[in-house]
Amino acid sequence: MMPDKVTITVDAMGGDNAPGVVLDGVAQALAADAALEVILCGPADVVEPFAAEHDRCIPQAAAEVIAMAEHPANAVRKKKDSSIVVGCRLVKEGAAQGFFSAGSTGACLAAGTLVMGRIKGVARPALATVIPSPVRPVVMCDIGANADCKPEYLVQFGQMASIYAEKVIGIERPRAALLNIGEEDTKGSQFAQEAHNLLREQLPNFAGNAEGSDILPAKFDVIITDGFTGNVCLKTIEGTSKTLFKTLKGIMMSTPLTKLGALAIKGGLKQLMAQVSPDTYGGAPLLGVKGALLVGHGSSNALAVRNGVLTTASIVRTGVSDIIAQTVTAPRTARTTEGE
Amino acid sequence: MMPDKVTITVDAMGGDNAPGVVLDGVAQALAADAALEVILCGPADVVEPFAAEHDRCIPQAAAEVIAMAEHPANAVRKKKDSSIVVGCRLVKEGAAQGFFSAGSTGACLAAGTLVMGRIKGVARPALATVIPSPVRPVVMCDIGANADCKPEYLVQFGQMASIYAEKVIGIERPRAALLNIGEEDTKGSQFAQEAHNLLREQLPNFAGNAEGSDILPAKFDVIITDGFTGNVCLKTIEGTSKTLFKTLKGIMMSTPLTKLGALAIKGGLKQLMAQVSPDTYGGAPLLGVKGALLVGHGSSNALAVRNGVLTTASIVRTGVSDIIAQTVTAPRTARTTEGE
Repeated sequence: MMPDKVTITVDAMGGDNAPGVVLDGVAQALAADAALEVILCGPADVVEPFAAEHDRCIPQAAAEVIAMAEHPANAVRKKKDSSIVVGCRLVKEGAAQGFFSAGSTGACLAAGTLVMGRIKGVARPALATVIPSPVRPVVMCDIGANADCKPEYLVQFGQMASIYAEKVIGIERPRAALLNIGEEDTKGSQFAQEAHNLLREQLPNFAGNAEGSDILPAKFDVIITDGFTGNVCLKTIEGTSKTLFKTLKGIMMSTPLTKLGALAIKGGLKQLMAQVSPDTYGGAPLLGVKGALLVGHGSSNALAVRNGVLTTASIVRTGVSDIIAQTVTAPRTARTTEGE
Repeated sequence: MMPDKVTITVDAMGGDNAPGVVLDGVAQALAADAALEVILCGPADVVEPFAAEHDRCIPQAAAEVIAMAEHPANAVRKKKDSSIVVGCRLVKEGAAQGFFSAGSTGACLAAGTLVMGRIKGVARPALATVIPSPVRPVVMCDIGANADCKPEYLVQFGQMASIYAEKVIGIERPRAALLNIGEEDTKGSQFAQEAHNLLREQLPNFAGNAEGSDILPAKFDVIITDGFTGNVCLKTIEGTSKTLFKTLKGIMMSTPLTKLGALAIKGGLKQLMAQVSPDTYGGAPLLGVKGALLVGHGSSNALAVRNGVLTTASIVRTGVSDIIAQTVTAPRTARTTEGE
């Protein structure tokens, strides 16, 4: 069965290696998905020649580029003709259903919220990601959109991330846990204790507290946390994996004998490194906005862009935004639920 | 030169494998350090036979044991004859200069603060640890004593951890960084931004923000954070290392050829696993109390107990508590420093 036709806007100028790897990734995504249409946003001299050569690719001139170092909200407000703002505006106007960029995460979050708009009832859109565990995928949310949170936001983060885990990643009946510093219900900061109580009351698939050591072993399918802790945690996993692989490589290259031994396990090791690579899912979705929005790593290669564009299409096809709009309950604080 | 004579109280009943591994570890520590004296606290039938057989070991009967699951502060208040409370009281009374336990971290923190007492001027004693990086040791503080912090506490955490890093771990002129979600000064939660400003003003060796990905590569020598984030982060590193090593083992054991290859790199791999093992330094010091206090992992083996007891002696010999008492400045908030 042919999948539903989907139109995605793509930021041709996003990422450290743009536009080269973005164009390669878009070409791969178009080849992989015959029902996909891409509106490629960027300078005319970049997007027009590429679109002329590729079926189902429409050029959309956008003269400005938002740099990584710019203040996100200010840049989005000022640069109306930037590839990020234009890409989000086309979703808002209905010309496309989703947007992908490997550019400034902050600018994408700001454009998602300011241009595409929040889903009614969502207090704070949140950034989720698939933690690349060698055991099985784990969805974490928030990973950085909201450095300062109120405990009740975390109930919505849990609701939205569970929908994403089930619909897009294909985890049936995902078990969601609160990232905390102890397994017991009474552990944690005041913030974590309040969030725990709200989650227990309001999130049906809530399974209790997770500790940092439970994430990569995939003890839970969804990890709920504030954007500060989530961002620190995600980057800690990346830094730890990278350092261990680098040290391991040093060990394997140290003598002729170890080099020979390394040959035998090279295949398996490459597979493991691919499993824990953030490129597999191609990016982090901003959940809670009207339309699909996926932000790729700045260091995305063509494969990551390909997977990012295809994942954005999958978010559209599985109707994540509509389900969130129908499911997410207005944030209730402990005070309002005390009488229950 | 013979090192200074030091007397350490040891909790014979602390840890998952007590008293067996504790006794083995104490015997190894006594053998390794001829100027070390141990007062072994625990049930008479455990500590007396062992002390009778070992030079420089004094038995101290303590009939009660605080279990891992007990409420820390309540247990410390009620169980005056527990090995943890007795061990700390002997330090308070001057019979010993430091205490080591692999028992309940919460009970040790409570006993350290309630029985040994805070150093004057220290707002909150904090738990530090040496992150076992394969690159070089990194001291992190707080890793869980204070789940809720005020930004000004972090200045003292940075001061105390820097002293520990220099005196006990031997890192000259340690560079200290605030764990945050971006390198730029303006990044982070409101809490992190306030802490950043205070650290920049008040900690001479402050080197800016660290991200989660900077920890294991040892980009900085000291990582300053609140007890919630620090605890999540430390356990995330442990869980990530453990999962990757386990998966790697699966790869190496998958075929006869990979098993052969694994033989060649086994030695180097074992060395790496030892480098990233928390047993090397034997525990986490509670900084800011009057006397040395080191808490070992509940899963400590005899080597970890040995190293923990020796590290406690080293904290005493290097005069960490005295230096903290002389160095730590009273916490100043942003308000009081605004006029500078």
